[in-house]
Amino acid sequence: MRRVITLENNVKRELPEDVMNDMKLKPFASSELGHPEIQRTAPVVRVTTGQNKVVDSLEEVIKSNLKDGMTISFHHHFRNGDFAFNKVMDLIIKLGYKDLTLAPSSLTGVMNDKIIEAIKKGVITNITSSGMRGSLGDFVSHGGLKNPVIFRSHGNRARSIENGEIKIDVAFLGVPISDPAGNANGQEGNAVFGSLGYALMDAQYADKVVLLTDNIVPYPNTPASIKQDQVDYVVKVDQIGDPDKIGSGATRFTKDPKELKIAQMVNQVIVNSPYFKDGFSFQTGSGGAALAVTRYLRQSMLDNNITASFAVGGITKPTVDLLEEGLVRKVMDVQDFDKGAALSMAQNRNQQEIDASWYADPHNKGAVVNNLDVSILSALQIDTNFNVNVMTGSDGVIRGAVGGHQDSAAGAKMTIITAPLVRGRNATVVPSVETVVTPGESIDVLVTERGVAVNPKRQDLIDAFSKVPGLTLVSIEDLQKMAEKQVGVPKPLEYTDRTVAIVEYRDGSVIDVIKEVKD
Amino acid sequence: MRRVITLENNVKRELPEDVMNDMKLKPFASSELGHPEIQRTAPVVRVTTGQNKVVDSLEEVIKSNLKDGMTISFHHHFRNGDFAFNKVMDLIIKLGYKDLTLAPSSLTGVMNDKIIEAIKKGVITNITSSGMRGSLGDFVSHGGLKNPVIFRSHGNRARSIENGEIKIDVAFLGVPISDPAGNANGQEGNAVFGSLGYALMDAQYADKVVLLTDNIVPYPNTPASIKQDQVDYVVKVDQIGDPDKIGSGATRFTKDPKELKIAQMVNQVIVNSPYFKDGFSFQTGSGGAALAVTRYLRQSMLDNNITASFAVGGITKPTVDLLEEGLVRKVMDVQDFDKGAALSMAQNRNQQEIDASWYADPHNKGAVVNNLDVSILSALQIDTNFNVNVMTGSDGVIRGAVGGHQDSAAGAKMTIITAPLVRGRNATVVPSVETVVTPGESIDVLVTERGVAVNPKRQDLIDAFSKVPGLTLVSIEDLQKMAEKQVGVPKPLEYTDRTVAIVEYRDGSVIDVIKEVKD
Repeated sequence: MRRVITLENNVKRELPEDVMNDMKLKPFASSELGHPEIQRTAPVVRVTTGQNKVVDSLEEVIKSNLKDGMTISFHHHFRNGDFAFNKVMDLIIKLGYKDLTLAPSSLTGVMNDKIIEAIKKGVITNITSSGMRGSLGDFVSHGGLKNPVIFRSHGNRARSIENGEIKIDVAFLGVPISDPAGNANGQEGNAVFGSLGYALMDAQYADKVVLLTDNIVPYPNTPASIKQDQVDYVVKVDQIGDPDKIGSGATRFTKDPKELKIAQMVNQVIVNSPYFKDGFSFQTGSGGAALAVTRYLRQSMLDNNITASFAVGGITKPTVDLLEEGLVRKVMDVQDFDKGAALSMAQNRNQQEIDASWYADPHNKGAVVNNLDVSILSALQIDTNFNVNVMTGSDGVIRGAVGGHQDSAAGAKMTIITAPLVRGRNATVVPSVETVVTPGESIDVLVTERGVAVNPKRQDLIDAFSKVPGLTLVSIEDLQKMAEKQVGVPKPLEYTDRTVAIVEYRDGSVIDVIKEVKD
Repeated sequence: MRRVITLENNVKRELPEDVMNDMKLKPFASSELGHPEIQRTAPVVRVTTGQNKVVDSLEEVIKSNLKDGMTISFHHHFRNGDFAFNKVMDLIIKLGYKDLTLAPSSLTGVMNDKIIEAIKKGVITNITSSGMRGSLGDFVSHGGLKNPVIFRSHGNRARSIENGEIKIDVAFLGVPISDPAGNANGQEGNAVFGSLGYALMDAQYADKVVLLTDNIVPYPNTPASIKQDQVDYVVKVDQIGDPDKIGSGATRFTKDPKELKIAQMVNQVIVNSPYFKDGFSFQTGSGGAALAVTRYLRQSMLDNNITASFAVGGITKPTVDLLEEGLVRKVMDVQDFDKGAALSMAQNRNQQEIDASWYADPHNKGAVVNNLDVSILSALQIDTNFNVNVMTGSDGVIRGAVGGHQDSAAGAKMTIITAPLVRGRNATVVPSVETVVTPGESIDVLVTERGVAVNPKRQDLIDAFSKVPGLTLVSIEDLQKMAEKQVGVPKPLEYTDRTVAIVEYRDGSVIDVIKEVKD
């Protein structure tokens, strides 16, 4: 058996020294990042007068711009309604390219088959992404990709693009509307997804920017989220996306009593925290509990005559409703999770599109997440040190995404994790998470249906919540024991020595690695 | 007498070889710039979480960020209502800095005294600007500054910032509204000027960005033309500008019969050109004739049932009126010349703020000026080769600005110069301009009150205009002779051998130099 030399980072994860050295990585130290001075990078721009960049042949664009070994990027704003990715990747595979690095903002299920095909054919040999799920996560977890995937948060991707750690050679960006010069947004057309937030990084920093669209309108198209001076080509395609699969068409309000109970408790936690006052700010997610939180929070705001200064993050219709109702003053919008939020961007001047750097970059002069009071985030697992896993399942297989989790947790004054104590036969609250994504030092409160656990470092919150009638405060160790009592102690998972993925912290340090699952 | 070795550029201007070599400059060759590949540069960013950047002491900000020999920048959007420049420069002079390069988007008269003081004290030893006027132009033309000023067009400044020819160390940017994190725009507050177009380059590329404002509002301030992730400091001042001096309060419609006649002829030229059809685009300036052109053009559009796709440039109220009337679909707005245009930006979604690169940069992937059909520009002088001078007066003294002249002329399909044949006792149409700013190859039509001269290379326009009743076509040589007949042949101006300013073409080549006037 090969002997593996490891070094331990500050969340007590063993990192393989050979991989760390080969990839020139440093171990995670702290969520406090200080004040480094960062030399940013910039693209090489091929000059053109650029009135009409419309081309028919995507193949010609690829052939005249892509070389083996290059880095290509995509955005994931179309989610499972994406027709751009497979169209491009089909051609790249057909043309026989090798050793490409795939560096999208994230990957969605609809891309999985094509990526696996590209990996098997040697077309893609490196991937960096926010996450992956389904067959691709399974494939990578079973050692399908030669080199480790690098998982980066949305803020970390922005940071890495800005400082050159990710150098995008060609960005392929699908948009629902563009003019012939490349002025484009995500707000009009058939396949509307709203904010182009993540893709704005690619448009600014890639050497070559290729737009794909089914909707070319007369010049000038405004508002121009992507601007003509950033774009090399506009490729006309028959259909760029399936509007029905871009986001959930309508907002589901959960009827699951467990989710409703958690949402109510989250609302109690917020309302009784020192942050619930006029001008407070929050980020919620898109799950059933998160939507329910927004509803309860709305009532609390009305009852207490309190309005929020802003909401940020992946935006949903209920959040936009708060904006229109005057309960939220601004929506800072890096991504829209449903059609209602996407469509409202064109109507609401106060729904401000923000790019990934503005949203969450840890290495700039200030991101929106740093101004957050309350962030409500989810977890696949959380351990008794409050470390959170949103990346691997209880079987050790990759099935998640960092998203903005690390960023929002680091920035917010109070980060609340919502999670059921157990999911099926698996504990959510565990002695030690399979994969640390967000360090416990960034997490303040865990809300489960069995009670609320506050991070011991937040004695101020413990004091505040102790006085609240009906709010059950428990230690996280007790929650872990309750979970264990329900589902028992699982057999430890078995992994090989091989590292299949690196989970970076938002500053580029390594917070954990993911090993090949043995089965 | 010292022998000066010169080299001649493609508009037949003698350029001093020693200056060209010392400053590593190349002579102007052509307005066709081809497809070079340009490595852009990027700033050094000092990382901060950046929630509250408000500081009271501008002096402390200067002391902790500015060093001798650095480059500082300002914008000129406040025009003569600017309180930011003198406030900053006063402190810089007081603190005894030396050898600074001043690199504003342009300079306005209200700054002149302070700049002359700074030059005399050795604080400023280099200047690059779009232009200068009044006492400063006089001072420089008489050899007051040690090193030659470099005059750059708005597009050229963007280009030079992007590729590092201008490296801004500290940008001091006045704004009428900002939040404590630095989200700012020019659209709200007391001293509103509308588009922040030129300043957006500084915000993106300067190492340090210092906002000055009298109006700090709660976070988050949107729309954010300048974004929090670009800003290092927000300095609170008592008053940032004088709203009454920012732009002309009301639109003056000329009653000068000569200007009205020229405007009518310009309208005839446009209407009878091949470009006057639905979806055409135009740029006009802010002078009396330009405003009259807009009025006549409006009537022609109504009469012919034609609407414009966009208007671009420095924007005035009459242009915004066309937008609101539906005669212009979009206004691409890099700068607002009057209060009406400035105030309307917050109301009109179709009044799109654009930065200087998007507007006019010759070295990007396509600027708005390249999409222009018709550009109407002014001239201090125009010669029989159609070369235009907008920089020096008939006495050889600096009293103008390149502005977007070169950029718009190079981009537009038809560039029209409007000028009276003579001004007072000086001819406007001359055998040879004192200073070439825009090469004749970019100029298609000259409209004077005595007739219209078409550049002989545009036989298509000559053919089109020949058929128009009432439109007097004359050769530019004849116009020059008519002018000469009116005012006589002036005594040639006398200059010393010393170069006091370089006029760059938009690609950074030298189109002319300005010599020290002898008197």
